[in-house]
Amino acid sequence: MLARYVPILTWGRAYTREQFGRDAIAAVIVTIMLIPQSLAYALLAGLPPEVGLYASVLPLVAYAVFGSSTSLAVGPVAVVSLMTAAAVGRITAEGTADYISAAIVLALLSGGILTLMGVLRLGFVANFLSHPVISGFITASGIIIATSQLSGLFGIASHGHAMPELLTSLWDHLWEINPYTLAIGMSSLAGLVWIRRDLARRLVALGVPAATATTVARAGPVVVVLASIVASVVFGLGEKGVALVGDVPQGLPMFVVPNLSVDLVAALLGPAFIISIVGFVESISVAQTLAARKRERIDPDQELIGLGAANIAAAIGSGYPVTGGFARSVVNHDAGAVTPAAGAFTALGIAIATLALTPFLALLPKATLAATIVVAVLSLVDLAILKKALAYSRADFAAVATTLGVTLVFGVELGISLGVAASILIFLYRTSKPHVAVVGRMPGTEHFRNVLRHRVETVPKILSLRVDESLYFANARFLEDCIYEKVTAHPEIKHVVLMCPAVNAIDMSALESLEAINGRLRDMQIDFHLAEIKGPVMDRLKRSDFLQHLTGKVFLSQHAAIAELTQVSDGPRRV
Amino acid sequence: MLARYVPILTWGRAYTREQFGRDAIAAVIVTIMLIPQSLAYALLAGLPPEVGLYASVLPLVAYAVFGSSTSLAVGPVAVVSLMTAAAVGRITAEGTADYISAAIVLALLSGGILTLMGVLRLGFVANFLSHPVISGFITASGIIIATSQLSGLFGIASHGHAMPELLTSLWDHLWEINPYTLAIGMSSLAGLVWIRRDLARRLVALGVPAATATTVARAGPVVVVLASIVASVVFGLGEKGVALVGDVPQGLPMFVVPNLSVDLVAALLGPAFIISIVGFVESISVAQTLAARKRERIDPDQELIGLGAANIAAAIGSGYPVTGGFARSVVNHDAGAVTPAAGAFTALGIAIATLALTPFLALLPKATLAATIVVAVLSLVDLAILKKALAYSRADFAAVATTLGVTLVFGVELGISLGVAASILIFLYRTSKPHVAVVGRMPGTEHFRNVLRHRVETVPKILSLRVDESLYFANARFLEDCIYEKVTAHPEIKHVVLMCPAVNAIDMSALESLEAINGRLRDMQIDFHLAEIKGPVMDRLKRSDFLQHLTGKVFLSQHAAIAELTQVSDGPRRV
Repeated sequence: MLARYVPILTWGRAYTREQFGRDAIAAVIVTIMLIPQSLAYALLAGLPPEVGLYASVLPLVAYAVFGSSTSLAVGPVAVVSLMTAAAVGRITAEGTADYISAAIVLALLSGGILTLMGVLRLGFVANFLSHPVISGFITASGIIIATSQLSGLFGIASHGHAMPELLTSLWDHLWEINPYTLAIGMSSLAGLVWIRRDLARRLVALGVPAATATTVARAGPVVVVLASIVASVVFGLGEKGVALVGDVPQGLPMFVVPNLSVDLVAALLGPAFIISIVGFVESISVAQTLAARKRERIDPDQELIGLGAANIAAAIGSGYPVTGGFARSVVNHDAGAVTPAAGAFTALGIAIATLALTPFLALLPKATLAATIVVAVLSLVDLAILKKALAYSRADFAAVATTLGVTLVFGVELGISLGVAASILIFLYRTSKPHVAVVGRMPGTEHFRNVLRHRVETVPKILSLRVDESLYFANARFLEDCIYEKVTAHPEIKHVVLMCPAVNAIDMSALESLEAINGRLRDMQIDFHLAEIKGPVMDRLKRSDFLQHLTGKVFLSQHAAIAELTQVSDGPRRV
Repeated sequence: MLARYVPILTWGRAYTREQFGRDAIAAVIVTIMLIPQSLAYALLAGLPPEVGLYASVLPLVAYAVFGSSTSLAVGPVAVVSLMTAAAVGRITAEGTADYISAAIVLALLSGGILTLMGVLRLGFVANFLSHPVISGFITASGIIIATSQLSGLFGIASHGHAMPELLTSLWDHLWEINPYTLAIGMSSLAGLVWIRRDLARRLVALGVPAATATTVARAGPVVVVLASIVASVVFGLGEKGVALVGDVPQGLPMFVVPNLSVDLVAALLGPAFIISIVGFVESISVAQTLAARKRERIDPDQELIGLGAANIAAAIGSGYPVTGGFARSVVNHDAGAVTPAAGAFTALGIAIATLALTPFLALLPKATLAATIVVAVLSLVDLAILKKALAYSRADFAAVATTLGVTLVFGVELGISLGVAASILIFLYRTSKPHVAVVGRMPGTEHFRNVLRHRVETVPKILSLRVDESLYFANARFLEDCIYEKVTAHPEIKHVVLMCPAVNAIDMSALESLEAINGRLRDMQIDFHLAEIKGPVMDRLKRSDFLQHLTGKVFLSQHAAIAELTQVSDGPRRV
């Protein structure tokens, strides 16, 4: 029972020395990659840089205990950092103790929500974030984040978590550009872009194995960080107005009990829920992709518990909301991680770095961190999704465009909320007007097809309709209208046969509609029949008294219906 | 073009003397029935009684011009009156000029919304009120209304539009019961119940034709009203503390321009929308039932315009929101109305009554009107729906119970909103976990059925899955999990065939999931195939590049898939 919720009890017992070796190597590489990212994402979240390091220690240990993916690397990520900034920034000002405290509470709430969802097996809630919504949201977030980092690259002030405010504030401060900051920022950017685009290829050309080259290239940004620190010292950039990371407290924070006021919890509960779902969807997708390569399976509900534990640990360790990151998980996997222990070793690496490296990090220009973020998030921006969605269906395009547009203009929370609402409404709208075909018999066969698409035989006194959708409240009245329209236009109709091979369910509203159709057709002296009803749907219908009232019959096949009804005399009718 | 939106231009031209005769007779009977109801419902809405009469004049004329039902009788109805009281009562106190003015604005907004929905052909929005929600809502409204009228029957004060407040206030004032009011109230109630239950039967026993007896019984309450007025005069009830209707302005109101402030409109827009939808759903259901008896068809979008015009007319004529009433429409139909002109003649009747009868109505005890309402709304209360829903499905029961409970405890607006939200979420939840069956071949046939239900033949290296639901965002990841779970448990699987005869649509999220499944199965060296995809779904898939990436094939039938894949050698695999 306990082992079900704590995977480490299963894999931990069989942990081998060989596994340790592979996990440790992966941990070293991920640690090198994670240090600059942690600092940068904390700044993006409006937090002191060391909070990013804190969020990369305890959460990784917690995930190693409770998580089920052998490849996932958790920690601060770009989109969640932006969402944290948006949520906390609405409550209090950046740079205050309240701000940090609110970020901790946000992690705690997020952890609680994720854990609860995992225990209650509510992972399906994440399904409401449809692919178009997630794509539009991630792309918009990437654009917002990249734009917000321009201030760091230019050495100017900016504020806001949506495009209009960001662009206005950037424009207002544009004359304040610091040339030294700009120089170090642009150099860092160029270096990072070169590492990302060309380094692996160059290494391969030099004879380095492809896998190693890729891994080295992924850890490469640390070189840019080191070079920036050196430049900062050599040119005395701090005195020239270039913003440096500055003094970072050496050592790990004490375990804190967050300051939980009712007002704060109430204000953060909604954002925490959205952050949880977005973080989970991103994480589970990475975890499943990497698991498939090892023919392993990820249990989504256990992942909720793993991420929940990681976020609660983030709160305990003075961090902020975390989730599984795409790039670092791929690095972790490619570097050979075979158990969640790799994450725990990474945590150890970050802890050592926090203790030992902070004096050097104080000299790092913030512009370099901004460049790190810009390079990382530009890979999130995928405007081609708009074109792809448009080609596939207008409904999906509408969902992408709504989410993308609202997120850019009004921010992350409204963007994702309206995106979800739009995709649900679009789905309901589509199923509310299902495809309904009048069908006839293909000559010489027992097959019935759409009269508009095929040359088929029909009987004037029989209206055969096939409805290609489950019948439920949103389309129940549509079906009624559809039938009334046809029978009032054709007074010769004496029988209506509803062919239901594609009806997977009939809810109570649809049942009520079928009863209304039956009663109203009876008033018109028309019999109402059903054909090809699926087993589970028939079981359900038998639980009501509908079949007793049905004026016609239930036929096993459309062919049987037409064969029998064609022979029936429709002379004097019962009253 | 104009005739499309103004049905009177069509039927009005062919209007005959015979039609006039039948419409006029129906109008007389409906007028007699409508006078006490109009007064009573206005009081229920917290408005002076004459407002009910005003709402029964112009709206009927407007509906006669724009409506499409030949039987529908519009005017004040119980549920909409309660909703009006709830909406306006939140803004201002009963008995003030602002209250009346807000009710007029509510009618105007409701009329605007309905007309706009009709012109934009948005009638499908009403589909979101599922049958369980409407049933639960109407039943709860009936209970609330009946309870609220106890104060009128007892002659005590009460307030509130939900049960807790109503019951508390009734309890607080219980010691103030006026025995004369109680006596006249209970006598009226007894008389009305007797008329409803027994009068028609007695008349038939006396040799009156059944149809006439029913119609007389429907108009019977006017006798109780007359008797109460006589009792009021004879016993001088007014001096004994019995609340009378009191002075009603003689004559019709001037056309008023409602006082439209932005704040008022903002506060009333939400309630106006809910009132519009509820009124429309009730009205269209009555109209369709009665139309079917004449083998006529109701155009829902034209009905929106008809009801919209009626509500705008209500605002112009100092009335309040109206809709088609069930009982009076049935009376109208049974009394022989053949065109919407019957409504216009009823309006004339009410106008004459307003001019001529108001001195007599002043003496009518309000307790009699309360009794009228109680008798009318008790027919709305249908607690059996709970049992029926429970027997049919837990999901529908949850929707009924949510709507009923929340409406009773928290009032009409929250009740219907949460009911709609619940029924949408329940639907999404149900479709998010569709029925998925592993299928095998029925021996000696080409049919494939569920391995759990039938003795079928399977091939170990092939996993055949049939999914009984359209694939969309809410169930896309469920399908992924389902497949990964099965293939990781059975390493012998080399092929997965997804059988899609019940898949009516594949949205972009589901497409993304299929791509992920394809890619991840490829990583596991498993081929992914599809079978029995419907034409429209296939057309859609061809608009993406999914089929180019598919590791397996698309088979026309499951049988063809198994036949071919069984023969394939699965020796050395491509990388």
